[in-house]
Amino acid sequence: MQPKGLSTKSVLAELKNMQRIDQHYDNGKILCSMCTKPHPLAKKAYEMFFESNLGDSGLFPGTALLEKEVIQALATLLHGEKAVGFLVSGGTEANLMALLAARNASKIEHPEVVLPQSAHFSFTKICNLLNLKPVYAGLDSSFRVDPTEVKKCISKNTIAIVGTAGTAELGAIDPIDKISEIALRYGVYLHVDAAFGGLVIPFIKDFKPNFDFNIEGVKSITVDPHKMGMAAIPAGGILFKEANALDLIKTETLYLTDRVQYTFVGTRAGAAAASAWAVFKALGKAGYQKVVGDCIKNTKLLAEGFEKQGFKLVVEPTLNLVAFRSANTKSLAEKLRAKGWFISYLSRYDCIRIVVMPHIKKRHAVAFLEDLCQIEKL
Amino acid sequence: MQPKGLSTKSVLAELKNMQRIDQHYDNGKILCSMCTKPHPLAKKAYEMFFESNLGDSGLFPGTALLEKEVIQALATLLHGEKAVGFLVSGGTEANLMALLAARNASKIEHPEVVLPQSAHFSFTKICNLLNLKPVYAGLDSSFRVDPTEVKKCISKNTIAIVGTAGTAELGAIDPIDKISEIALRYGVYLHVDAAFGGLVIPFIKDFKPNFDFNIEGVKSITVDPHKMGMAAIPAGGILFKEANALDLIKTETLYLTDRVQYTFVGTRAGAAAASAWAVFKALGKAGYQKVVGDCIKNTKLLAEGFEKQGFKLVVEPTLNLVAFRSANTKSLAEKLRAKGWFISYLSRYDCIRIVVMPHIKKRHAVAFLEDLCQIEKL
Repeated sequence: MQPKGLSTKSVLAELKNMQRIDQHYDNGKILCSMCTKPHPLAKKAYEMFFESNLGDSGLFPGTALLEKEVIQALATLLHGEKAVGFLVSGGTEANLMALLAARNASKIEHPEVVLPQSAHFSFTKICNLLNLKPVYAGLDSSFRVDPTEVKKCISKNTIAIVGTAGTAELGAIDPIDKISEIALRYGVYLHVDAAFGGLVIPFIKDFKPNFDFNIEGVKSITVDPHKMGMAAIPAGGILFKEANALDLIKTETLYLTDRVQYTFVGTRAGAAAASAWAVFKALGKAGYQKVVGDCIKNTKLLAEGFEKQGFKLVVEPTLNLVAFRSANTKSLAEKLRAKGWFISYLSRYDCIRIVVMPHIKKRHAVAFLEDLCQIEKL
Repeated sequence: MQPKGLSTKSVLAELKNMQRIDQHYDNGKILCSMCTKPHPLAKKAYEMFFESNLGDSGLFPGTALLEKEVIQALATLLHGEKAVGFLVSGGTEANLMALLAARNASKIEHPEVVLPQSAHFSFTKICNLLNLKPVYAGLDSSFRVDPTEVKKCISKNTIAIVGTAGTAELGAIDPIDKISEIALRYGVYLHVDAAFGGLVIPFIKDFKPNFDFNIEGVKSITVDPHKMGMAAIPAGGILFKEANALDLIKTETLYLTDRVQYTFVGTRAGAAAASAWAVFKALGKAGYQKVVGDCIKNTKLLAEGFEKQGFKLVVEPTLNLVAFRSANTKSLAEKLRAKGWFISYLSRYDCIRIVVMPHIKKRHAVAFLEDLCQIEKL
């Protein structure tokens, strides 16, 4: 820290220089992110509630009401009539709260959790924290967890099963209904990680896979407004089917306006809750259907383009993710990167994976296909 | 979620209604918060870097550089020549990362952590998550942890000791140098929670308690720019004395621009890092000395006022926190609350505790003393 402060002008000038080095969603080159440019009203709302701290919600009852309404909207969307929850730092904290509730509900000394091989890496962190042994269940040919494999992984130490509705790598939707049957049969907690898919699947026309509280065994769902919800970071979301789950994760506070806290994070950006609220109100279901519809359209355009150019799709896309491979995918990924495209190369599937977020417009998809064609011709 | 979106105008009108219900730091009535109104440049910087995600820092190398510079500034301030670290969601995540490193470094089956009785409640959450047994050490008459008590709490299962530099309740600074001797003697990890004090103590004139990396045994420090640093939420901070601690907490990612992640939270608000950077640059050491100096002045004004009115201070304030009691403190707290003052009543010390943050101006302190006087006269 320098001895004396700088002028506002020079601070802003330095910030502008740094801003130039960053990528920006608007340039359409970011094809590897599950976050996107927040909706204009998300930004406006964030600015209005900039000071707000939901970790001390007695001071900010207006913001607390906004959070409550966002949670209610998510609960209704995901068929959780009595569901309760919070907006948290992100999917990792949301998944943590779910598995913490599951672990604390059990008395098992060496608890295990059954995870699809495709589960998000946040579960690696969480298992490490909570001393949970992860037991990985294999996938079927569509990269969805195989229920027979899940069943094989169950032991007397199993305290939870996780399913994913929209995997981060390939957008696969696990057969939650089948997993639920297993969870109910063995009396095991079932958590659904719909961090990404929870605000995609309900808005896709003529596509109604069952993945939410409609399914009896589902006890909690992660669903992040700061991904496809177009809210500002940090707006992850956790929903519990029933309020009594909260007793398993509460901590007493000593000096705050709230006497207990349920989230892991203490101080919480109320502005992010306001941002989520603003987008929900501004878009409504119809608005999200339009946003998601456009993403799906561009995904199909890309998928067809890849096949036309002779690339192989890893799997037929259902959500707004598409992955493909060539004879030498890794080298292709490097060439695309050299042309300024930010894509993910997934070594475990030897593929290039693209997330078609709302900031990817048709013209960006077309430009990507053109560059791809050009690279292959060389 | 309603079927159709609302107009921008009506969304903003509803948000304004909610904003009116919230308290605002500017009104000077919030005397119970360790957060404050962010510096104007913190807000400006936040808006500039609104999209940025440090959980995928390859996309945002400019923001990543800002974070690095904030961490370097904090490291220098706290005498950590080789210290490394991150801006995280808050003090809770920062404390978690420290105790996770300590736990993962040990091979002890039933690990214990020695905590001052005054440790922040986030450690209750963390011990629950990490399966650490908290062993509480008693305090001395100044509410600082008693090193003799700490020593008594050490067992063969102890993996870490925590000390606090600026407790949340009374602003006490534990004798970190003495605790360090114990930590070194028993080969135990020492973490300092300076979430609040880390950006206060270095800026107080003629007051140099030793609490940071100057002390040999200190392995990590929590220090939150979103508290007295006047940065925007979420800007907690964690510093590790040496980079090799990071190996103990890393997780591999599968599809991000970063191959490993050290923070608990995945997606991270880069805008908060930019906000911290902007305040550090705008204020410099001299600016923080002025801010902290004013807070301390107002704290003294309040403390003297309380004593003049016949109240008893719980302890002579060293930082910008002051706590007092009367014959019936709880009832007094309720009367102050009825007059619109937000103060904390701490049942375990039967006192009213006030945090004199930068948003508390002299006129607010004077008005509070006047109301207090009036209540007592009735």
